[in-house]
Amino acid sequence: MSSLSSQPYKGTRDYYPAEKRIQNYIFATWRRVVQLHGYEEYGAPMLEPLEVYTAKSGQELAGEQTYMFTDRGDRVVAIRPEMTPSISRMVAARRQELGYPARLFSIANFMRYERPQRGREREFWQLNTDIFGVEGALAEAEIISLGAEIMDAFGATKDMYTIRINNRKLIDYMLSQYLGLDGVQSHMMMKLLDRKDKIDREEFTRQAVEIFGTEVANESMKRLERLLSARSMADLPADIQQSAAALEMRDLFALLLSAGVTNAVFDATLMRGLDYYTGTVFEVFDTDPENNRSLFGGGRYDGLVGLFGADPIATVGMAPGLTTTELFLRSHNLLPELMSTTEVGIVVIDNTVLGALDLAKRLRNEGVRVEVDISGRKIDKQIKAVIKKNVPFIIFVGENELAAQMYPFKDTVTTNEEVLSFERIVSNVKDRRRKDEDDEFAEFFD
Amino acid sequence: MSSLSSQPYKGTRDYYPAEKRIQNYIFATWRRVVQLHGYEEYGAPMLEPLEVYTAKSGQELAGEQTYMFTDRGDRVVAIRPEMTPSISRMVAARRQELGYPARLFSIANFMRYERPQRGREREFWQLNTDIFGVEGALAEAEIISLGAEIMDAFGATKDMYTIRINNRKLIDYMLSQYLGLDGVQSHMMMKLLDRKDKIDREEFTRQAVEIFGTEVANESMKRLERLLSARSMADLPADIQQSAAALEMRDLFALLLSAGVTNAVFDATLMRGLDYYTGTVFEVFDTDPENNRSLFGGGRYDGLVGLFGADPIATVGMAPGLTTTELFLRSHNLLPELMSTTEVGIVVIDNTVLGALDLAKRLRNEGVRVEVDISGRKIDKQIKAVIKKNVPFIIFVGENELAAQMYPFKDTVTTNEEVLSFERIVSNVKDRRRKDEDDEFAEFFD
Repeated sequence: MSSLSSQPYKGTRDYYPAEKRIQNYIFATWRRVVQLHGYEEYGAPMLEPLEVYTAKSGQELAGEQTYMFTDRGDRVVAIRPEMTPSISRMVAARRQELGYPARLFSIANFMRYERPQRGREREFWQLNTDIFGVEGALAEAEIISLGAEIMDAFGATKDMYTIRINNRKLIDYMLSQYLGLDGVQSHMMMKLLDRKDKIDREEFTRQAVEIFGTEVANESMKRLERLLSARSMADLPADIQQSAAALEMRDLFALLLSAGVTNAVFDATLMRGLDYYTGTVFEVFDTDPENNRSLFGGGRYDGLVGLFGADPIATVGMAPGLTTTELFLRSHNLLPELMSTTEVGIVVIDNTVLGALDLAKRLRNEGVRVEVDISGRKIDKQIKAVIKKNVPFIIFVGENELAAQMYPFKDTVTTNEEVLSFERIVSNVKDRRRKDEDDEFAEFFD
Repeated sequence: MSSLSSQPYKGTRDYYPAEKRIQNYIFATWRRVVQLHGYEEYGAPMLEPLEVYTAKSGQELAGEQTYMFTDRGDRVVAIRPEMTPSISRMVAARRQELGYPARLFSIANFMRYERPQRGREREFWQLNTDIFGVEGALAEAEIISLGAEIMDAFGATKDMYTIRINNRKLIDYMLSQYLGLDGVQSHMMMKLLDRKDKIDREEFTRQAVEIFGTEVANESMKRLERLLSARSMADLPADIQQSAAALEMRDLFALLLSAGVTNAVFDATLMRGLDYYTGTVFEVFDTDPENNRSLFGGGRYDGLVGLFGADPIATVGMAPGLTTTELFLRSHNLLPELMSTTEVGIVVIDNTVLGALDLAKRLRNEGVRVEVDISGRKIDKQIKAVIKKNVPFIIFVGENELAAQMYPFKDTVTTNEEVLSFERIVSNVKDRRRKDEDDEFAEFFD
């Protein structure tokens, strides 16, 4: 038989311990921040009926990017391409039992059939965090501030990212009242603006003129340009500034400022691709010119719970992604050096494996994470294996060491080596752990 | 439009915060124990090429139970029904780079198309924990002891479960040398023994006689009965006891005893369904007559890495499941009361939400996990919501409280209420957290 490929399925990643540490660091940071703000974790199935996505997620996502198939019982199902419909379904199913505001989060994997590229994989991980049951700008301000606090917790400073904000109701007003577009034209214009950064200027103008129709194109293009060039709400035409949606947005900006979020800006062209948004939309962008990408986004979607046979619930949510977060941390040099979760590797000299296992057991009783090399190989191979795994300490155990109860204890980073008692080993390991935890929290609480 | 169903896909579960807490408690216990033993976490894709499973997992799993489909690029893929082939593939891909013994674990979800029933869901979660690169009984003893330590960490005592052990090489010897079966007959007998507890005695005898053939059935059935009635290695016929496989098993039992695993027994009929096992196999059974089920199992599978174009590596692994663990904990009354991860809910009296948000921010700076009710609803509704969510404490914040900087602080479990300063609130919350952590670790380190 010819051998099977050892490569993962196209567009997916294997997470070996070194990569998994990074993933876990990001997951743990997400979890710590959202739990500090009272968000509770939930989980949803990896499969959903396809119709859950065709209803409101938009044609591209449901029709073209979804991994869908017919199960052995003739049900048409999809591997979840996003979490929003699942959590909306779950809230609908227990609408009466839940306490509101319901603050819910999950960390889960998703699949979309896309061309894999830097920062985009077919299987990807997201934090999804949503607040259910609050109308008005306090909810949006909470979710956006939470996004900013997550960035802060990773050590990002405010100049490293910008939060762009828009509002679907304001977009509707601008498209219909200010640009005079009908429903079909508005929808086309939203799709065009959503693609704006992916096509060149000329192509953008050509398509915009086509949407406006040639009679009014000149005047309409001027108005569109004015919207595109607006750098704050104050740059908008006066009548737009007086709309209800614009007043709502001003409330939001005021709340964000009072929460210390100083890097939020208005962006009239921000659309967000998904069909279900009903109010505020936002997107966080890296300001690094080398990595000038959207990091994550979210917004208000008040209609989704109502699709599942329950009364609608006001909802705001967002979904930071693992891969974009990792690229951001790398490009800003914010990713810490992460060593193995194993703290001690015991190298076995002589034929003393049972003695080594006994020492390991005593160390574990003190809470030390320890492995023993039970392979019976030569000492140099054992040492190399511990170093390969990024385990911070080595203990050497042979007959003499067990008899004297004093053990050579080597720091694999500094290569420093001392002969220590059991108690000293335990306290050295714990000192290192405490220092690590302090470093992690120092970033967070400064 | 008629509304969409709010129910999850057949055979899958929604994990609301109350259920997710239980899942997280089990995951955290698994993670703590295996990390104490030096196992490092990895992650693998949810999809694999189907051929990864057809090679060695057995016809039932790969052919009948797998969620398989053809992707948009004409690749035949499967949602992983188990982890063993994925981690074997990963180890093969980095055979040279990894340090050995490689101790690896993952906590992940899987799907199998089976009829859902108590303790069996189509989507299910498992801990997979494997040691690569060690031949001989020390590796088996480590994995089996690890299984026992996981049970201990959940508070199980040795009388609550039994570990049944057998060995594929011993099975081969018994079937070919002692029962005189050829290759085809041996395979049929293994499948029959694997189903033994699912069919009645008469049916079992009928099928066994059919495998033996009528001429030798009488004598062969007597020999088979002798194997079935063996309660320890010593009950086996003398020539079997002298086989190399039997000597290997005796080593294993000795190591287990010295590691304090006193509830491991020999079971000549234990087969384990999967085709890839090559040596020791084991299975942990609940001793409760009400819940007398297999909790999890594992064994040695030295050939799997070699399927992926690398030299074979000696491997032993096991995979405890979430659902069976939860049923075990429930049936033995071992599941702790779990409250929300949110420690404080702030109820907003008067129109003081900005003051409440500021207090929340100060509490978070001290590490307290806190939510604020920003819904503007009546106080009794706010209180009910906090209690529904199982949040342990409520702080009431109104104008007077903010002015005096003294806050009514209510314990939602005892219903005790005091008026406390900020500092006293922080220390009360932390006392409770410390007590919780002590309770959790007390079980583990006794």
